[in-house]
Amino acid sequence: MTQLSPPSAATLDRLKQVLGSHGFISDPSDMAAYLHEPRGRWKGTTAFVARPKTTKQVSEVLKICSESKSAVVPQSGNTGLVGGQIPTGHEILVSTDRMDEIIALDTFNNTLTVQSGAILSDIQMAADDAHRLFPLSLASEGSARIGGLLSTNAGGNAVLRYGMARDLVLGLEVVTPQGAIWSDLSGLRKNNTGYDLKHLFMGAEGTLGIITAAALKLVSKPRQTETALVAIKDLQSGLDFLNLAQQMGGEMISAFELIPRIGLEFQLTHISAARDPMGEAHDWYILIELTTSIANIPMNVLLEKIFEEALQTGLLLDGVVAGSESQRQMLWAFRENLSEVQKHEGVSLKHDVSVPVSAIPEFMSAATEAVLKIVSDARPVPFGHLGDGNIHFNISQPKGMDRTDFETKRDEIAQVVHKVVMDRGGSFSAEHGIGVDKRRTLKTFKSDTALDLMTRVKEAIDPDGIMNPGKLL
Amino acid sequence: MTQLSPPSAATLDRLKQVLGSHGFISDPSDMAAYLHEPRGRWKGTTAFVARPKTTKQVSEVLKICSESKSAVVPQSGNTGLVGGQIPTGHEILVSTDRMDEIIALDTFNNTLTVQSGAILSDIQMAADDAHRLFPLSLASEGSARIGGLLSTNAGGNAVLRYGMARDLVLGLEVVTPQGAIWSDLSGLRKNNTGYDLKHLFMGAEGTLGIITAAALKLVSKPRQTETALVAIKDLQSGLDFLNLAQQMGGEMISAFELIPRIGLEFQLTHISAARDPMGEAHDWYILIELTTSIANIPMNVLLEKIFEEALQTGLLLDGVVAGSESQRQMLWAFRENLSEVQKHEGVSLKHDVSVPVSAIPEFMSAATEAVLKIVSDARPVPFGHLGDGNIHFNISQPKGMDRTDFETKRDEIAQVVHKVVMDRGGSFSAEHGIGVDKRRTLKTFKSDTALDLMTRVKEAIDPDGIMNPGKLL
Repeated sequence: MTQLSPPSAATLDRLKQVLGSHGFISDPSDMAAYLHEPRGRWKGTTAFVARPKTTKQVSEVLKICSESKSAVVPQSGNTGLVGGQIPTGHEILVSTDRMDEIIALDTFNNTLTVQSGAILSDIQMAADDAHRLFPLSLASEGSARIGGLLSTNAGGNAVLRYGMARDLVLGLEVVTPQGAIWSDLSGLRKNNTGYDLKHLFMGAEGTLGIITAAALKLVSKPRQTETALVAIKDLQSGLDFLNLAQQMGGEMISAFELIPRIGLEFQLTHISAARDPMGEAHDWYILIELTTSIANIPMNVLLEKIFEEALQTGLLLDGVVAGSESQRQMLWAFRENLSEVQKHEGVSLKHDVSVPVSAIPEFMSAATEAVLKIVSDARPVPFGHLGDGNIHFNISQPKGMDRTDFETKRDEIAQVVHKVVMDRGGSFSAEHGIGVDKRRTLKTFKSDTALDLMTRVKEAIDPDGIMNPGKLL
Repeated sequence: MTQLSPPSAATLDRLKQVLGSHGFISDPSDMAAYLHEPRGRWKGTTAFVARPKTTKQVSEVLKICSESKSAVVPQSGNTGLVGGQIPTGHEILVSTDRMDEIIALDTFNNTLTVQSGAILSDIQMAADDAHRLFPLSLASEGSARIGGLLSTNAGGNAVLRYGMARDLVLGLEVVTPQGAIWSDLSGLRKNNTGYDLKHLFMGAEGTLGIITAAALKLVSKPRQTETALVAIKDLQSGLDFLNLAQQMGGEMISAFELIPRIGLEFQLTHISAARDPMGEAHDWYILIELTTSIANIPMNVLLEKIFEEALQTGLLLDGVVAGSESQRQMLWAFRENLSEVQKHEGVSLKHDVSVPVSAIPEFMSAATEAVLKIVSDARPVPFGHLGDGNIHFNISQPKGMDRTDFETKRDEIAQVVHKVVMDRGGSFSAEHGIGVDKRRTLKTFKSDTALDLMTRVKEAIDPDGIMNPGKLL
């Protein structure tokens, strides 16, 4: 790869000309929003923030950067958690935040075509207005933009039923590192004409080009939702319950989320409105949700039947069913508050891991044991998407321990957790990607063949290495 | 790319040693089954058929071929329709037909791990035995093998609900052109650790490596099925009915297939058991199927309600509902016999195309008009997967015309059909791939940027061009 140099004054002038006066920020005092990321772990620096409004402008920008061998960091909603969107040297930051249009809705084709800077919640609303659902849903949906969500193949709460972000895409428009535009936005469900380029750009974290638009798949809008919180005695019962629920409720099971007692207790301590949902305390809880787009079938009866069967076979200890939308919100809050309340308990070391669903119980005990060997009174708070094997294996610091002391254990703990994960065929980054954060981990755990294949692809598509250098690979 | 030469005697000896006495065919008289393809359009020639039993053997074979710069054609069930699996020069044919094991079932993870030579119907049965469904389903399922189905990203009858073959895969094992093994078979639903290599190999038609195993996604087994054949007055009514059915029946609509009157008439003529399903003749029919894995919900009532609404709003002219499994089979026969009966009506020029669902009515009239301009009494028999936009736009020859005369129109007709398709953002190969058949079409219609990206990927992963030369790109 060529050595990349800081953009020259001449390069910046060319960029300014292409972008117009509203299309860039060159005053460092106006750049803060683009250079701080959610967890405050990486501080960005850049000489120039490009804010193109059109695909044509993105193309012109990348042509200039390619010709001048200037490095580029694409940024979308700046909600990424692994630093992938933050320039750490003299890269030019290309933000798509002005490219936020909903381009077209096709109700017969069930597609929504959007610019890559469109905010997820705006997309959800546009789908809803058309009596349809765009199923991608996650905590940052009010500010995350679709280009970043696709570049990182975001996950979220609906993966069990609807798949990852990449599964919700029928076509993309992408600008290559050389500034060429590849456009495939007609929203075909079947198109076997060569390598699937869209899947190459999705999940590439901006290292192969910039996604400028997408044709998104819409699905039928749920017309009924049944939500319950249940208590289980152990994780194997949780899996047995999942199996039973899927056997009886099939395609309607849309969420199956794990909550540990300690996470609930953190909420009882720090959130004044929180109440213990059941008479007794239990080690583990599962939030289960069934949805259907069919108006007139008795969903509540189905949920009751699943419960009956699960109680009879001893899988469930207790449970509460939401009787109203506000009760549903309350049950979901137990799940959604988990990240936030951990902040009140000091440092939390986070591991966004997945294993085959069947391996979860054994993974959880092995990982817990490994962590406690390092810090015996650390407090694991593992929670998340049990139904799809993705556990946020977070470790809160011991009570009263100095924050910095615990933070020194970050790498050691991550290493043992990832080792346990990888020994079980798992993933050390289930949802969040690699970015800066997990590059070393990628090198450690990914096979030589996989790394070789990825490097070949990277060098073929971005031979000068201008796209998001220092990220992912 | 390097010039490839026929395999030397020394190379063949090395291959024989690696494969063992049951692992190859070198006598030309035993090769017929590997060299004839379903439509008899390409006649294969090869000096050597390798029949490895293990991934290790595939790896050894590709190492030898890579070192000796010997070209390789991977072959699976030999059911492909575009000649991708047929060696046309001195390539070595690598068949995976001995690698047909079901490796593992994981009922908690809902995955089935199989060798790439496993036959689709065997996989379907293994899933069924586990009270689950592997949804891929197509005409050749009794002989098609999964490696080829994934390498060509097969479609079929369940795409509307479950997606293409690639959507049913959680992981792959692949041998690279250099003989390295990339293995990712643990069946994770979430794994954001670098470029998605599995999606690169799927749909690559064996030009980037050989798929040796796959971790397949299982879904809940349908416990109820409702099937009906309805008559519509025109294609726009068909789309309106699709829209209505999806609004009311949501996730349960699993098939939505178009049958033209002429296709039904061919059956009435050539199949003695066939009976006109309705009192009157209608221009278009739709086969609609609803399935659910939930045992106790009133599916028949739902179908009735959809019908009621559609009849009231004038979308449907008539309809019959299957009252038993044998009636269901009878209705499906109207759809499944379409390819076969066309053979009795002389030459059929086939176009496996897709457009956005919303564009189907306009596409159909434009394409029909364009074809009739060339041969005024040609007989279009367009049928297929209306619900996902994939129409088999087949043209039967005029009655009494000489076969050969009509066949001379093959290219001209294909060109105008593909032009009409591409002008509407469609695909000239929705399901079947490129192979040998559509290479020139690919060059004509694919954008320069797409071709450039594909070529870069091909050259990066297979720099010597040994994998399936002359196919796809």
